[in-house]
Amino acid sequence: MSSASPHDGHPHVEEVVDAARGAGGDDLAARVRFLLELEALKRVHRRSLLVDASRPENSAEHSWHLALLALLLAPHAADAIDVPRVVEMLLVHDVVEIDAGDVLVYDTVAMADKARAEAEAADRIFGLLPGAEGARLRALWEEYEDRATPEARFAYAVDRLQPVLLNALSGGRTWQDHGVHLDRVLEVNAPIGDAAPELWAFARAVLDGAVADGRLPSAPSPLPG
Amino acid sequence: MSSASPHDGHPHVEEVVDAARGAGGDDLAARVRFLLELEALKRVHRRSLLVDASRPENSAEHSWHLALLALLLAPHAADAIDVPRVVEMLLVHDVVEIDAGDVLVYDTVAMADKARAEAEAADRIFGLLPGAEGARLRALWEEYEDRATPEARFAYAVDRLQPVLLNALSGGRTWQDHGVHLDRVLEVNAPIGDAAPELWAFARAVLDGAVADGRLPSAPSPLPG
Repeated sequence: MSSASPHDGHPHVEEVVDAARGAGGDDLAARVRFLLELEALKRVHRRSLLVDASRPENSAEHSWHLALLALLLAPHAADAIDVPRVVEMLLVHDVVEIDAGDVLVYDTVAMADKARAEAEAADRIFGLLPGAEGARLRALWEEYEDRATPEARFAYAVDRLQPVLLNALSGGRTWQDHGVHLDRVLEVNAPIGDAAPELWAFARAVLDGAVADGRLPSAPSPLPG
Repeated sequence: MSSASPHDGHPHVEEVVDAARGAGGDDLAARVRFLLELEALKRVHRRSLLVDASRPENSAEHSWHLALLALLLAPHAADAIDVPRVVEMLLVHDVVEIDAGDVLVYDTVAMADKARAEAEAADRIFGLLPGAEGARLRALWEEYEDRATPEARFAYAVDRLQPVLLNALSGGRTWQDHGVHLDRVLEVNAPIGDAAPELWAFARAVLDGAVADGRLPSAPSPLPG
């Protein structure tokens, strides 16, 4: 069961896609439809706040930030990686959230449904593209999800590191609001250590600082009452 | 005269940079400081609205969208281009706006001051990085500004095409609010045609549609009174 497009009912999207078809045929029309669909990722809100805590981060600007983390932190990757491949992977890794939404990595119940919902979203969204291009980007998204290549493991490491930084810098409210404590953060983010040991040492030092002044609880809260 | 960092006075930024230094030395500390500075681009608002006209686009999510336009529209480039280079260029092309702000491309007075303000911003922001890495990214930003390479011309073309699409799809309010009419839009966006003739034919068809129903005025408004 595929979701509808977020643009359904928009007065001019079909007109723009038709303009693309007139200028560059069905191939350009399909690429433009996909690129307009991506627009919706700017309206998917994540759980992390911006560093100044002014609002939640959205998944489009998050993807941009991760691409730059990958470009600049690549020297710290444990394995040899193809950096442009990591960047492209990160640019598309969250597009399934257009249909499936963002799921908190600490929410184990929601995480169980996540794989199915995201696979359906990938069918619909990458399926908008011309066959070979859609298959290529879908394979890149699956590579990210499977974490079986050095590129996918490093991409996942920066996708874990960045929210640690944002949550620590924005006062820890995301951790506190979701009842998350240090042991759980260490458990969820440990894959950073496999992909980039120095970045994991860095993340752990940031977490120690957050525990020291109470931004991150060191242990589960006692049950109320 | 360099601007201050948007993070000045933040209670934990120095602590995070120190954690990076402890794990990976001054090199990692400098990279992390730059990556945290980028956070501010998520709060730079552009003139274009999102397709659903719900709010202005910000420069971080805009950069993400452009990187994907470049990846997917590269087959329409007139010249052979190094696509990963175009992507990296687009990921950093707007970071100077952290200090210099976004300037409407139709505002000729503001555009005259833009080059000086952006060069100062580039000094400060790329100067946060370790020497060789900062010089490399600054050179990539200058290459974008100079439009002298096929990569820079194609990057500029997608940076011109995307707001045409957003402005047309969000009802033309950005054009109307700034008194912009068809001839001016054609003049400003004509460089799309040098870099990608089919994308320029596409853009012109979109603009024709916007003129046809009044989203884009076809001629300058008469002076009031």
